[in-house]
This record gives sequence, C-alpha cells and structure tokens, in this order.
Amino acid sequence: MLARPIKNLIRELRKLPGVGEKTATRLALHILTAPPERAENLAHALTEVKERIVPCKECHQLTEDSPCAICASPRRDRTLLCIVEDQVSLISIENSGNFNGLYHVLGGRLSPMDGVGPSSLNIPDIKDRVRNLGVREVILATNPNVDGEATALYIKRLLEGTGAAVTRIARGVPMGGDLEYADSLTLGRAIDGRGTF
Amino acid sequence: MLARPIKNLIRELRKLPGVGEKTATRLALHILTAPPERAENLAHALTEVKERIVPCKECHQLTEDSPCAICASPRRDRTLLCIVEDQVSLISIENSGNFNGLYHVLGGRLSPMDGVGPSSLNIPDIKDRVRNLGVREVILATNPNVDGEATALYIKRLLEGTGAAVTRIARGVPMGGDLEYADSLTLGRAIDGRGTF
Repeated sequence: MLARPIKNLIRELRKLPGVGEKTATRLALHILTAPPERAENLAHALTEVKERIVPCKECHQLTEDSPCAICASPRRDRTLLCIVEDQVSLISIENSGNFNGLYHVLGGRLSPMDGVGPSSLNIPDIKDRVRNLGVREVILATNPNVDGEATALYIKRLLEGTGAAVTRIARGVPMGGDLEYADSLTLGRAIDGRGTF
Repeated sequence: MLARPIKNLIRELRKLPGVGEKTATRLALHILTAPPERAENLAHALTEVKERIVPCKECHQLTEDSPCAICASPRRDRTLLCIVEDQVSLISIENSGNFNGLYHVLGGRLSPMDGVGPSSLNIPDIKDRVRNLGVREVILATNPNVDGEATALYIKRLLEGTGAAVTRIARGVPMGGDLEYADSLTLGRAIDGRGTF
C-alpha cells in the first residue's frame, strides 16, 4: 500500500538500533514532508562519514585524522591509558571531564560464546603501546557486566610484567541515586569496594 | 573531540523527531561501526524517496505513481471517502483492515493561531472530489484533539448541500491522543462505531 521507495526507506531505518516499525514509519514520513534539504543533508552526512572517517592507528577511535586529536595532543598525560570497549564509552568519559590521559578503544568485548576472541579486538597491540608510551597506569574502563569484567581480567593478566599499574573503574551505587533502588549485586560491590572517607 | 563528519551526522540525526543528543550519538556510532553498505543503503533510500515520491493528484497521499494504488484500484468503494490529516493516519487506518473506501489526505489540520487556514491544506478540492466521485458518505478521521475536531467541523460545514452523509470516527480512540499511537483494534472499533457528526 505504501510506495516502494517509502517502504525501502522504512526498511533501512528499521536496521538502526532501537528503531521499530512505528518509529521507522514516523521518521520516514517526517523526512518526506520535511524540506528537501533535510533528506539531502542527512544522506550527505551518511556518505561523508563513511568516506572520511578512519580508525586512529594508535588508540583505534574513529577519527578524521590519524593519529586522532587526543593521541596527537601535547596536553594529554601519555603515562595514563584508559581502556574502553567502544567510542560511546570514550565520549562518556571525556564528557565527565575527569580524565586527561590517552585512550585505547577495544572495539567490543571478549565473548567466547559469540566467537569474539582477543584477536578480533584491538587487544594484541595493547602491550606494545603500554611499553612504547611508558604508561605508568592502565585504567580498565570496560562495562561493569559479565563480559566487560572478563575482558578487564584478560587484559590485566596480559599486562603482567610491563611494570604498569592496572586499575579498574570503581563500581558501586550511582551518584544521585538512592540505595533503595540499587540492585543487590551493585550494593554488594559497593560494600566490598568501600574506601576511606 | 569528535571528528567533524561524525558531529555533522549527529547534528543531522538530531533533527529527526524524537531523537535527542544521546540517541543521535548512539545511531551515528552504530552506523560508523556497521558494514559500509548500511550507510550507503540508507543514504540511497533517503535520496530516492525525495526524487521518486510525489503526492497523488487525487487523494494527496505520498506515492510513486499518481494516481496512487488506492485511488486507481477497482476494488475500493469509491462512494466512501475517509478524510485524514496525514499519511501516518492513512497507514494506521489501512492497517486496521476496517476500511475499503478512498482517502483524502489534508496534509495537516486547521490551526488559525499558526496561520494554517483551509487554503494551506488540501481542503479546497474536497467538495469537487465528493461530487465527481458521487460519494455517499464522508468519514472525518482527523485526530481526536482540539485542532482535529475543529478541522472536522469545518469540513462538515463545507460539505453541506453535496448530499453526502458526513460521519465522524467514533471516539473510541482516546481524546488528546494521536491516530499514530492507537492499536488496530481501537482504530477498527473507531471506524465501525462512527456516528452522525
């Protein structure tokens, strides 16, 4: 009942994460009734991003220039390396404003059940990077779930003998939250990981 | 901190309805890490939809061919005309499966406060269409909110003297809502339970 190009656009939009049939339809019809530049600009941005963006040869974040602005910056502490699963984590940590070192983007997490081993990720070059940069501390900032913890543990073992201290981001009750709503796993972890106040 | 083409893509995605900063960032990074065809196909679908889609010269729905498949179909009841605000409403009613007549898409609703009068919408040609088709019943299926009700009332008055019965969908659909979010059962009930307006 819908014209083929509209159906096609809905099908392509549905492939985006978190976009179902209704959202895709609403987006498609919004695009159709919006000024033509809107669709053109979005199409152009999509094409450009695929043409111009490359992974940084050092930290593997997606960037226009390699090495990226963070790796090339003289103002960053090159002896502090934060290991994250993906670029969304990197952006979140940058936005928190509490970190001034370099990053290393794994491009995922270890998941043997799905066939994701160390060589599928940006893990093999971590050790060389830590040595070449003379890193004094590696912060493991993989996500606080089963796969993220396993990935952190794997990298901790990998870095034994490099001389770098290996730390893990604190896991506990979120700031601004309420103990009442924290799950028992998080609360248990918050008790176990308590520190001097 | 993010590369310019990525920022640009995020900015364009944010213009979509219901997409905020976090969702746009997540979508952009998903697109970046997905296979390249994903972005190409979406860009192509966006371009194609703007190039190939035209409004049907009869019912004004967006279509590849004018007249559209519904207006051209010999299986539709041409004496029954359903007036909707936009294509999302048309799709919702089609999906309910309770309607087999023709449609008339207004392209919006009357809203004098925003300067939207009858001539800004596909209202002037309704009367001729009703006469030329020999319509026996016009179903007003504008949204059940203030503007939609006012638009329905305006069209009811416009059609006085044409001989067509004017009905309004039963407000089984919750007042203040939007057709887009109604489930098909409610929409079907609204079509079946229509009454004199």
